[in-house]
Amino acid sequence: MDDYPQRLRDGSLKLYALEKELPPEDAVSVRRKFIEEETGVSLSHIGDYSIPIDAVVKKNCENMIGAVQVPVGVAGPVIVKGEYADGSFYLPLATTEGALVASVNRGCSLISAAGGSEVRILKDGMTRAPVFATDSIIHAKQVCDWVLGNPDEIKKETESTTRFGKLTNVEVTTAGTSVYIRLSFFTGDAMGMNMVTIASAKAADLICKNTGARLIALSGNWCTDKKPAAINVVSGRGKTLSAGVFLSDDQIEKVLKTTASSLLEVNTRKNLVGSARAGSLGFNAHAANIVAAMFIACGQDPAHVVEGSLCITTVDPAPDGVYVSVTLPALPVGTVGGGTGVATQGECLQLLGVLGSGEPPGSNAKKFAEIVASGVLAGELSLLGALAAQHLARAHSTLGR
Amino acid sequence: MDDYPQRLRDGSLKLYALEKELPPEDAVSVRRKFIEEETGVSLSHIGDYSIPIDAVVKKNCENMIGAVQVPVGVAGPVIVKGEYADGSFYLPLATTEGALVASVNRGCSLISAAGGSEVRILKDGMTRAPVFATDSIIHAKQVCDWVLGNPDEIKKETESTTRFGKLTNVEVTTAGTSVYIRLSFFTGDAMGMNMVTIASAKAADLICKNTGARLIALSGNWCTDKKPAAINVVSGRGKTLSAGVFLSDDQIEKVLKTTASSLLEVNTRKNLVGSARAGSLGFNAHAANIVAAMFIACGQDPAHVVEGSLCITTVDPAPDGVYVSVTLPALPVGTVGGGTGVATQGECLQLLGVLGSGEPPGSNAKKFAEIVASGVLAGELSLLGALAAQHLARAHSTLGR
Amino acid sequence: MDDYPQRLRDGSLKLYALEKELPPEDAVSVRRKFIEEETGVSLSHIGDYSIPIDAVVKKNCENMIGAVQVPVGVAGPVIVKGEYADGSFYLPLATTEGALVASVNRGCSLISAAGGSEVRILKDGMTRAPVFATDSIIHAKQVCDWVLGNPDEIKKETESTTRFGKLTNVEVTTAGTSVYIRLSFFTGDAMGMNMVTIASAKAADLICKNTGARLIALSGNWCTDKKPAAINVVSGRGKTLSAGVFLSDDQIEKVLKTTASSLLEVNTRKNLVGSARAGSLGFNAHAANIVAAMFIACGQDPAHVVEGSLCITTVDPAPDGVYVSVTLPALPVGTVGGGTGVATQGECLQLLGVLGSGEPPGSNAKKFAEIVASGVLAGELSLLGALAAQHLARAHSTLGR
Amino acid sequence: MDDYPQRLRDGSLKLYALEKELPPEDAVSVRRKFIEEETGVSLSHIGDYSIPIDAVVKKNCENMIGAVQVPVGVAGPVIVKGEYADGSFYLPLATTEGALVASVNRGCSLISAAGGSEVRILKDGMTRAPVFATDSIIHAKQVCDWVLGNPDEIKKETESTTRFGKLTNVEVTTAGTSVYIRLSFFTGDAMGMNMVTIASAKAADLICKNTGARLIALSGNWCTDKKPAAINVVSGRGKTLSAGVFLSDDQIEKVLKTTASSLLEVNTRKNLVGSARAGSLGFNAHAANIVAAMFIACGQDPAHVVEGSLCITTVDPAPDGVYVSVTLPALPVGTVGGGTGVATQGECLQLLGVLGSGEPPGSNAKKFAEIVASGVLAGELSLLGALAAQHLARAHSTLGR
Repeated sequence: MDDYPQRLRDGSLKLYALEKELPPEDAVSVRRKFIEEETGVSLSHIGDYSIPIDAVVKKNCENMIGAVQVPVGVAGPVIVKGEYADGSFYLPLATTEGALVASVNRGCSLISAAGGSEVRILKDGMTRAPVFATDSIIHAKQVCDWVLGNPDEIKKETESTTRFGKLTNVEVTTAGTSVYIRLSFFTGDAMGMNMVTIASAKAADLICKNTGARLIALSGNWCTDKKPAAINVVSGRGKTLSAGVFLSDDQIEKVLKTTASSLLEVNTRKNLVGSARAGSLGFNAHAANIVAAMFIACGQDPAHVVEGSLCITTVDPAPDGVYVSVTLPALPVGTVGGGTGVATQGECLQLLGVLGSGEPPGSNAKKFAEIVASGVLAGELSLLGALAAQHLARAHSTLGR
Repeated sequence: MDDYPQRLRDGSLKLYALEKELPPEDAVSVRRKFIEEETGVSLSHIGDYSIPIDAVVKKNCENMIGAVQVPVGVAGPVIVKGEYADGSFYLPLATTEGALVASVNRGCSLISAAGGSEVRILKDGMTRAPVFATDSIIHAKQVCDWVLGNPDEIKKETESTTRFGKLTNVEVTTAGTSVYIRLSFFTGDAMGMNMVTIASAKAADLICKNTGARLIALSGNWCTDKKPAAINVVSGRGKTLSAGVFLSDDQIEKVLKTTASSLLEVNTRKNLVGSARAGSLGFNAHAANIVAAMFIACGQDPAHVVEGSLCITTVDPAPDGVYVSVTLPALPVGTVGGGTGVATQGECLQLLGVLGSGEPPGSNAKKFAEIVASGVLAGELSLLGALAAQHLARAHSTLGR
Repeated sequence: MDDYPQRLRDGSLKLYALEKELPPEDAVSVRRKFIEEETGVSLSHIGDYSIPIDAVVKKNCENMIGAVQVPVGVAGPVIVKGEYADGSFYLPLATTEGALVASVNRGCSLISAAGGSEVRILKDGMTRAPVFATDSIIHAKQVCDWVLGNPDEIKKETESTTRFGKLTNVEVTTAGTSVYIRLSFFTGDAMGMNMVTIASAKAADLICKNTGARLIALSGNWCTDKKPAAINVVSGRGKTLSAGVFLSDDQIEKVLKTTASSLLEVNTRKNLVGSARAGSLGFNAHAANIVAAMFIACGQDPAHVVEGSLCITTVDPAPDGVYVSVTLPALPVGTVGGGTGVATQGECLQLLGVLGSGEPPGSNAKKFAEIVASGVLAGELSLLGALAAQHLARAHSTLGR
Repeated sequence: MDDYPQRLRDGSLKLYALEKELPPEDAVSVRRKFIEEETGVSLSHIGDYSIPIDAVVKKNCENMIGAVQVPVGVAGPVIVKGEYADGSFYLPLATTEGALVASVNRGCSLISAAGGSEVRILKDGMTRAPVFATDSIIHAKQVCDWVLGNPDEIKKETESTTRFGKLTNVEVTTAGTSVYIRLSFFTGDAMGMNMVTIASAKAADLICKNTGARLIALSGNWCTDKKPAAINVVSGRGKTLSAGVFLSDDQIEKVLKTTASSLLEVNTRKNLVGSARAGSLGFNAHAANIVAAMFIACGQDPAHVVEGSLCITTVDPAPDGVYVSVTLPALPVGTVGGGTGVATQGECLQLLGVLGSGEPPGSNAKKFAEIVASGVLAGELSLLGALAAQHLARAHSTLGR
């Protein structure tokens, strides 16, 4: 084993090729030591991982040197009254932002005291939108016409690549000679990006063959993946869902130390009007915090926090209280594949009772989405309340946030 | 110790109060076991952490039960030619998305072969924008006038709360009777959200006292924090910076297996035109992926991936090649505070030579920002190249992404 | 007649009620004189109108005192190769912006020299989106489900109010307890806002009756009418169409005094990248100018210039030249109703051969849309060329723009 | 004169060159007759204009053939309590949209009954943003640094071109190698686009000379002119101003036939939440209608309706009523130059007491802006009220809108 460092240094062995010669743990160890020597930095904590990595080095992370440990706190229990999640849940939050777990926890108490978080999924579909080049705007229209005129053929072609995936919607648009075809799929319990990319490649080939269009990129940014985009607000992506709860004046006063009209004013002047004047696509207080913490805990793709940040938070005045809701237009989640198979992340999913494939397919992912939305509701309630009571600064200085 | 579960169950002891009675490790252990019992789920991997947690339970994570392990791979080395980062770096990427490290790695090779990534920071300032209520649009104007007329007083007040923070800019706007005051601060090597929130609270009190305005929320969403917002594109937030590299036709062909004109076409039809038609604020391929992976590895706030996703990627035609760049208008980063003090995350920062306070203050955070931008450039180069060569789908099916 | 001023002054006769007692011309005259006396300002030119006003005072303008005269210039002829407009057209432009007609005229020459403007309509549908309040997010979902489950009933109900209108699409979304139902209609040769508002009122009543939802507003801003909105870019409104033309290097040099690569660079750095960095929904040079001038000339609703400004302009490199296009995602136009019946505006429509109902219904409006898009293309070509040749400032100082 | 048609037909005389040989009226007449012959369409009403056109054919409209007559109605009087407009005004509205004048009129009554519209201008500056190309992101930063380091030199250079214009602000940004310099000017009573374009050309030359940057376009779309853009919301363009009024419960009930809470609910669910879910930059009901009608009446640039549509409308609950406001972040207006010199448009400006240069310079334009904002407030009040009372559809079918 002694000659690996030398071979890595002289370039005869590539860093990423270690797994071809060594068992995973050894490959990771040799690589980490090589990096330690090259940089003179000790990486002992990174090397001190406990998760099995046979699958990880193949499916999740090339050139692995170890792992970072992200502290996990629990908030809750929170009562969730969804169509898939129905019960009481402890929410795992992986975070290093002081005060976040405490804040969500307070929101969970409030929700539970109020009888639970109502949650409903309004739409479900993972998207991919290849972009094609055409010769002219006339040719562009011909491509659109062909696509809209041959839904069955496209459906058949895409579904030949996947056991679970079902093509559920096709949208087209153009910008001059560029044609964008947005394909939406039901992807079961998988987040589905990989599945829909492969399926879209088949659709793209079919379209090119029949129309003479040239495929420019399998993703033409009209999907839109991991960029903040109004199309996801308008048309949805992944799960589109809402969570809401009625709070009585009494509950608002007791737990949040504020009033209904104050909550309403904060939400209007900050989340609605303030966001409007910032040219924002997100109309919430800090939905991204909760989405990020639950996504990292549960092995989701953390770049999808971008989509999660599109949340809108509303406060409706009501007799004797307020109805507060969050609506997440685009929450891509999965309980199989991706990071869900890493041991610690899998445990977090198990904590919520959603690891792996659901019965029927898709039900675990939906249940998980409902729980995340409830967590976002808890986070919004708590922060809005804190702002209303004007003690955000105090909370920060005490908890070191 | 035997009575803790019982006290937790009957509610006489709160879950978050365990640290008041027990040393951190024991508190975390009791709490985790309680959750295990309540849910019937084993959390043994989550419990198998190695990081010291004395500070963590105070500063980073309430109600801690353990940690998730996120696999870390390295990409590079990549040559960075910044004003703060000048040298060759291995980039730590914490991710579970197969193919990501490999993709960034390929970009790093290309950048290094081309002589390195040019990087420059164009602007630096962390922002907070309290929102105030006034009685009328006349009163709103009076508040604006007072703020714009008393910069020194506001500066003095805010800087009384911080050793490093310096107020560098004040912007005002209104929407009817709501007044938004956006304060920008130099925050040294800290990301600075906590610092600027505390400082803004003092400014807000001063403003209220002198104008009769009512403070509604310390953050009025005109900051804008963790929501995708055009104001951050227009005015910047955190670090505003660009990275660029000239690629010769030969390098494009050899490493990316494509051509200059093909790269240009992909960038135009996907990143520019496709994003435009999606109503997007991000004009890039997957900047959020790299920002997320480096942020999680290095203890940054992962909800700030939202700001990172505002990146614009450009490809300029040039004689015998192309000049490719990424511009990140809003990258909030820090090398002290937040998650930087967690052991594994600290090691990743050390790997880049940026852990802790820099000399002069702010230089470590700037160096880190320059390295992140170079990583984003690597990621964009590689994915644009892959799309140009139409093998995204193949990469996905092989690497299980 | 002598007592009218006195009755108007003492309030016993309302200014708007004059038409009830007098023939239109007299009513307008009395009203104008009253205003002249009240303000001491002579309105003799405003009073010097030639258009018949019997219908105008009933359908177009209450409290009429006369008319403003907006100068009309012609650009062209421009060759249009659309599916509805096929031939050579002089474009009427009502404007007071010096250089505009000259600029469009130059673009028309260029287009005609290049063989004409290719135009295609990709989508056609006028929209209205009522907003409803519900009791909870659960109720909100029930409303969506009812709407999506009863398309035939909704279609029947809406079409009972209109001879030409056909409901072609229904989209739903929610934000918490607010439900938005976006109804798209084919509206023949009418722009259709009135028609779809009335039809939507019927749909709204039906929905309320069946679901218990409360109608809040017949327009819930998810339509979106007369506000710049990404939904219109993504989903279209009114006519969605493109116009394009191939320009040879020779033509670019001769007419525009510039080069293909220079045109391409201006378009990328200004229309694409510049707009992106401004958080813009319009990616063009000055589409709004041409839309405004043609809309005012032709009796369209000038507030729909907002929708017209969503245009994206593209320049594709091609061997021996460039292909330039404009895509207008949302162009609401009509050739019957609204201002089309005013005599001068009717003449402008006649000039284009599109006044009144087409055969089949809708064909005149479509023909008109194709001509407007060609005008926009001419305007973009000319201004891009002027910018490329860096003589915008000179043009301005010479022509007094 | 007989040979003109022949010379026009055979191309030996260009249509735009008629003014070189003939007095304006004759040139326009010959041109119109030529068009009539070419198309077989009578343009007699277009030819029946009364406005003097000596200046018009030089400054406002090339290739003139006559004029369209746009009906003008008056709304009001409305009491305006601004810093420049202080009194009672009849608002001239040029429109063909039935019900619009009636609707604004009702709003005016309500405002006047409530004591008048409070108006304040918060910011004033016309902008132009040239775009430059640089060699690298390093060069781009150097250009920014030079610009920010030499404000006096740039100010002096720009102000050498104008008697009234004053450079008041300079903002810079980059996207890769593209550099955008946004110059804001005080432009007196002129709307100022022409003035600032000429001044910006000088600044651009200076910058190029000193930095080696290449000017790509005098407008780089970061201005942003006539495209809907968040930068104008965030930073303002032209006049940034608000108008507001307190309405008592009694007034709401009597004039609007609705209630405070109903107005509030319509505004929240439609103007705020509905616009948010549409990815809109405008959060109002129909501000563009009033801006368009007043702009056309008063000789403003109607393409600037786009900027006007960025309006945000707010309704604040208050004891015994509501405070309603509109905020227009970007209203470009002028009372000299452009279309203000056309006779009918000049009369409309006179009706408001704002034609020509004010004393001090700028005061007429500001007074006019305040009146327009009051008109927008009237329009919003009336339509919100109508929606609240659910009779929009009825108003439409009665008034033929």
